[in-house]
Amino acid sequence: MSEELKVVGTNVPRLDALDKVTGAAKFVDDIQFGPGLLHAKLKRSPYPHARIVCIDTRKAESLPGVKVVVTGRDYPEHFVGLYLLDRTVYAVDRPRFVGDPVAAVAAVSEEIAEQAVELIEVEYEELPGLFDPEEALKPDAPLIHPDLGKYECAPFILPEPGTNISNHFKLRKGDVEAGFAQADVIVEGTYRVPHVQHVALETHVVTAQQDASGKITLWSSSQSPFAQRALIAKAFGLPLDQLRVITPYVGGGFGSKAGVSMEACVIPLAMKARGRPVKLRLTRQEEFYTSFVRQGLVAHIKMGLTKEGKILAQENKFYWDAGGYTEYGVNIVRAAGYSSSGPYEIPNLKTDSCAVYTNHPVGGPMRGFGMPEMHFCLEQHIDVVARRIGMDPVEFRLKNAIREGALIPTGSPMHPTGFSDCIRKAARAVGWGKKRPPSAPHKRRGLGFAGMWKAPAMPPNPGSSATVKLNEDGTVSVSIGAVDLGQGALTVAAQMAAETLGVPMDTIRVNLVDTDYSPYEWQTVASRITWSTGNAVVQAAGVVRGRILDLVAEVWNESPEDLTIIDGKVISFKSEQEIELKDFAVTGLQMPDGSWRGGPILGEGSFMPTYVSGLDAETGQGERAVVHWTTGAQAVEVEVNTETGEVEVLKVSAAYDVGKAINPDLVLTQIEGGAVQGMSTALFEELKLEKGQPTNASLTDYKIATAVDAPAEIKGHIVEVPQDDGPWGARGVGEHTMVPTAPAIANAVYDALGVRITSLPLTAEKIYLALQEKT
Amino acid sequence: MSEELKVVGTNVPRLDALDKVTGAAKFVDDIQFGPGLLHAKLKRSPYPHARIVCIDTRKAESLPGVKVVVTGRDYPEHFVGLYLLDRTVYAVDRPRFVGDPVAAVAAVSEEIAEQAVELIEVEYEELPGLFDPEEALKPDAPLIHPDLGKYECAPFILPEPGTNISNHFKLRKGDVEAGFAQADVIVEGTYRVPHVQHVALETHVVTAQQDASGKITLWSSSQSPFAQRALIAKAFGLPLDQLRVITPYVGGGFGSKAGVSMEACVIPLAMKARGRPVKLRLTRQEEFYTSFVRQGLVAHIKMGLTKEGKILAQENKFYWDAGGYTEYGVNIVRAAGYSSSGPYEIPNLKTDSCAVYTNHPVGGPMRGFGMPEMHFCLEQHIDVVARRIGMDPVEFRLKNAIREGALIPTGSPMHPTGFSDCIRKAARAVGWGKKRPPSAPHKRRGLGFAGMWKAPAMPPNPGSSATVKLNEDGTVSVSIGAVDLGQGALTVAAQMAAETLGVPMDTIRVNLVDTDYSPYEWQTVASRITWSTGNAVVQAAGVVRGRILDLVAEVWNESPEDLTIIDGKVISFKSEQEIELKDFAVTGLQMPDGSWRGGPILGEGSFMPTYVSGLDAETGQGERAVVHWTTGAQAVEVEVNTETGEVEVLKVSAAYDVGKAINPDLVLTQIEGGAVQGMSTALFEELKLEKGQPTNASLTDYKIATAVDAPAEIKGHIVEVPQDDGPWGARGVGEHTMVPTAPAIANAVYDALGVRITSLPLTAEKIYLALQEKT
Repeated sequence: MSEELKVVGTNVPRLDALDKVTGAAKFVDDIQFGPGLLHAKLKRSPYPHARIVCIDTRKAESLPGVKVVVTGRDYPEHFVGLYLLDRTVYAVDRPRFVGDPVAAVAAVSEEIAEQAVELIEVEYEELPGLFDPEEALKPDAPLIHPDLGKYECAPFILPEPGTNISNHFKLRKGDVEAGFAQADVIVEGTYRVPHVQHVALETHVVTAQQDASGKITLWSSSQSPFAQRALIAKAFGLPLDQLRVITPYVGGGFGSKAGVSMEACVIPLAMKARGRPVKLRLTRQEEFYTSFVRQGLVAHIKMGLTKEGKILAQENKFYWDAGGYTEYGVNIVRAAGYSSSGPYEIPNLKTDSCAVYTNHPVGGPMRGFGMPEMHFCLEQHIDVVARRIGMDPVEFRLKNAIREGALIPTGSPMHPTGFSDCIRKAARAVGWGKKRPPSAPHKRRGLGFAGMWKAPAMPPNPGSSATVKLNEDGTVSVSIGAVDLGQGALTVAAQMAAETLGVPMDTIRVNLVDTDYSPYEWQTVASRITWSTGNAVVQAAGVVRGRILDLVAEVWNESPEDLTIIDGKVISFKSEQEIELKDFAVTGLQMPDGSWRGGPILGEGSFMPTYVSGLDAETGQGERAVVHWTTGAQAVEVEVNTETGEVEVLKVSAAYDVGKAINPDLVLTQIEGGAVQGMSTALFEELKLEKGQPTNASLTDYKIATAVDAPAEIKGHIVEVPQDDGPWGARGVGEHTMVPTAPAIANAVYDALGVRITSLPLTAEKIYLALQEKT
Repeated sequence: MSEELKVVGTNVPRLDALDKVTGAAKFVDDIQFGPGLLHAKLKRSPYPHARIVCIDTRKAESLPGVKVVVTGRDYPEHFVGLYLLDRTVYAVDRPRFVGDPVAAVAAVSEEIAEQAVELIEVEYEELPGLFDPEEALKPDAPLIHPDLGKYECAPFILPEPGTNISNHFKLRKGDVEAGFAQADVIVEGTYRVPHVQHVALETHVVTAQQDASGKITLWSSSQSPFAQRALIAKAFGLPLDQLRVITPYVGGGFGSKAGVSMEACVIPLAMKARGRPVKLRLTRQEEFYTSFVRQGLVAHIKMGLTKEGKILAQENKFYWDAGGYTEYGVNIVRAAGYSSSGPYEIPNLKTDSCAVYTNHPVGGPMRGFGMPEMHFCLEQHIDVVARRIGMDPVEFRLKNAIREGALIPTGSPMHPTGFSDCIRKAARAVGWGKKRPPSAPHKRRGLGFAGMWKAPAMPPNPGSSATVKLNEDGTVSVSIGAVDLGQGALTVAAQMAAETLGVPMDTIRVNLVDTDYSPYEWQTVASRITWSTGNAVVQAAGVVRGRILDLVAEVWNESPEDLTIIDGKVISFKSEQEIELKDFAVTGLQMPDGSWRGGPILGEGSFMPTYVSGLDAETGQGERAVVHWTTGAQAVEVEVNTETGEVEVLKVSAAYDVGKAINPDLVLTQIEGGAVQGMSTALFEELKLEKGQPTNASLTDYKIATAVDAPAEIKGHIVEVPQDDGPWGARGVGEHTMVPTAPAIANAVYDALGVRITSLPLTAEKIYLALQEKT
């Protein structure tokens, strides 16, 4: 690899930009299927918890234009899931949340399918519902999953059959009681985070078609084409080569399109459609009812510290409102558990992080995988305890900040990290300590701060792979299994391949995902693509580079070490000969004796992170069990209208240690997007649920931040302390950028007003009432 | 690799069988494009040779529903070709055969497109035409390509500007005059082969769509997706990553779908269709007018031999009726030249093989690439000379048969070959020497014999590549760039991967071709896939096998040499441990210390044949210039009705030295298919051209053999003398099987009647007239 970087570290334009601004980019709904296409609609439970007495589909079946009707009763043992298989494709006899699909129709038009769904008659017997995780933990609470003990689950998920706990992650580091005993101050607090939804611009769309040989092709707007292939194939007993998932461009995901949420519902319809393709396209309202939500959280935090501001002990109880099925959520609970110190060195730590069944919508992953929820609680509590001992919250964070060699919650030493530098940079840029005057007498300004950390998907998870091939004209085709859902994965992969190969960016094209052809990728989640897929791309490109240099060296009778590739030309430092890739990329080269060497040049790479052991079930301890951490910090300046309670975010300054910014502009746009989405969840977002019933399931009633609401100034800072196993030292940063925003804003509101809002969102109403209460 | 073969060499069913018998197999015309699809029609020249005075497209353009009209004048410098770029996408100002496209229309329906084509007004000035290659060689013949000297061409193609010769291949081995001087007998003969067409079941269909970023996707029924990408991209100045060729199943090709014949015509339409897909689907009649034909041939052969039957010298003049453009045909002429001894050791050989422009349809490759035409002449001549000296034709062939170490026409020694064994096996199986009595008094029986040889595509041609990846469940995805056009390429690739990996056949799936994703392949031509692509598949699977064994060996703390893979399980001979591929294919494996090894397993392979030099332009001599030869022989028994001249082929026995039959049933079905197609060209097929005008351009008038006409008995024999550079020693055999049929039938007719028909086809009329003349 070149010593001096030419492409990596530069702001090359996104590969998908032209496709997207011109409308050339194809999304699933753009794919044409001709007149044979059938349209699917789901019949969903109107009750949060009920028993199905009977389903009568006869009227629906006899509606002209209806081709297939299926119910959950036809698929009683078809469990779909990644970690804990607690959910069947359709609810079989017991829907567990409002919107739980119980049947479906495929018809020649969406209108007919909708009519047919209305004609399906379902007789329900309502069951008592649970709508609060702490209520669900009471001994007399009804069991939402009496069969919990029978479900298949990953070995590191620890359900507690006979309760509503689908996973109980325990972390025991040091001696928390001893820690509290030594503490000068002990502070307890409780914080609450409601359900929110991802609200990706593109709703879920999936089309399935079965050919006469039985093979099913699924065109799916997905972050996880390979995981969908695996989970759906398993549910329906198909070998993996009988299912093909094609994922073109994806219009945002934020986790909602990870794993399988509703995609499996279309499979039974396709299997009965006699070869016709069946499309299931969710409306925005259906999206609110049918796809994943971000889980709710109730967090009790107890912290013991010295009066000098050293944290000695922390005890956490996290109760996650995981919804009617928690299969993906169980792992979020675990991630929050093993990250539960936040980016601080805490010698004694005890955490119980529990996924609790309720009759709420299904909790799935959402940008940050539990970190935004947990950090909202933790970073406010840090603020509370710092202020309690009269210490500046930034100084307090610096004092306790995790440093290289300090033991992380799971017991192994921290790798080199720029977290302290992030704290300093973010604080400096916001003008920490120098509060500016408000713009009007009835307004108050405040500064707030929060840190964060997050690890990428924790092993054991399969890794990434990539292939790189040269075309005859020296252009390069890169194939990866990762999805570009707006984050720039294609661009970063191309930059890495270009840098490794020594070719211009505009000669590289990266293929979208087709599981038949594309190399394996676990999922496009956890901010792992730049790091994990990146490693595979660098490896594959390195193989190609090696083959190129070996070939040319043989023909020129030189040593490969004396050659390099610059701008698509192989150049010898020694003989000063040069040759363009296109002159031999596929055809090979002629030796002086007239014989030929070479042939089509291609290479492949495969990456799985190095880690040593799993976590002990009782203590959560393990040797290098977490691969690495991206850390960062945000400072915000807010102005609050004391007459209305409205909060305006004036400035966000953020700094992240990304190890190495492969494309600094892409990092900075992640920081901007994260700040806006973080602000949105801080101030506006909540999926309101009354006895399990969503009451704001539309973009009229569910408020998200738009460009108009965005902070006037967002200032991003890139810190680069290289990661030993990252390409050029890179770590992921996609999710991280939204994690500290909400607690930083809450802390700033406290700074402005002296009132603390411990639950999200920080609505004007809550602030106004709190101010009223205070005065 | 296992010592004992489990899959290679066995008759596994074809991978595509189920798809094809159920109708699941998708061909280009089956792909749905939705209501935006436009339909293209070509405006074709009604004259064999003309100057375009003017083209008026105004009426066509104003027809409602017409979206695009283009003419050749818009694309004057867009030459498309593989070897000699003598043809533009459309004829610009001078169409050179009846059917030469001069303009085209894209409209919302095929009917409107047809009407619009009629409305294009072209004023032609007819030019004198040439309809016989020997006429075209006369000094006063008009020049069909006055610009011949300006065309780009491959270095090994030798056009003669100022004449109608687009390639003149010269072979000079030994001293042919000295050979004739020593000969006891010298025999001369002239033979003629007419134009025939491939008549693949699926006509040419191609759909092109340009997206807003400029990238064009071409769905093409092609044998050469990568060559189409290269040639079309070159013609339109596109980088290769701006053109994507997708080739699903192909309904036969026989060479007509190699390279580019009419596919480029759709590109200008797609470029002006504002993103709408444009489909060009040839009717059967259009197929006759527009796509390649097999070139006509006039061969003058002079042979000198001893009275004991040793051939001493041979002189050939081959004049190929190459048509209005000969770009692909020039290489056929060359292949015929360097193969012109046939499979015999001929010490003194002189051949001039010339591609000659005429105003006939364009000659392209067809099954055998010149070999069926040349062998029709050569193997009849062998029969003639053997009978002249009173020697049994089979004995004569055995005496002169090429053997290991004998010098081939290009001067290097022959590799080990089973040709003599093929002769013996074919002769024995037909009952050579024991003519059976006819079934009626007015019928006569005869036995005929012919040998053959053919080399695969001769370097310098790029090679093949392949990738193999393991799926999580241990199933295997193989990607190749070769097309399955009915020959069984997918099945053979799967067998090789299964054998190398030690997995069951039903766990392997082979992807169809998509140039964005699939590894590079030159073309699916020349019977080179089993050999060339096969080598790449074996290499790729070998990489995967190596990674599997290394991984398991490390985890088990054993040596990879002590492990093997049987039936999808890794097994240790030493410790007798075993583990299924699915247990680690993607997830890796845990070491005893709890750490993990592995990750997604994939591998790639690349193959280019070893050869040493090109051929000298004046002598056609070169060191290992031809990679290898597949040899074979056929014997036939015919019964001829002396009252009508009708020939019935009673029995065909055929033997080919395939090196190693990867799938014997596939070899035998090639032998059957080749015998039937060979018989069809022997007895029925001729594209009749009157002054360049096809007069039988329909399946009503153009007779091909059907199942009803097939020989009552076809007996195939496989000879296996391994090829050093073939996978398990395999050579290709797809084309070869039709090569000797026509001369064997002609020789059998002579044997039956004592009359020799020196031109194809051997129609009842010709035979009847010859019999009349004889008596």
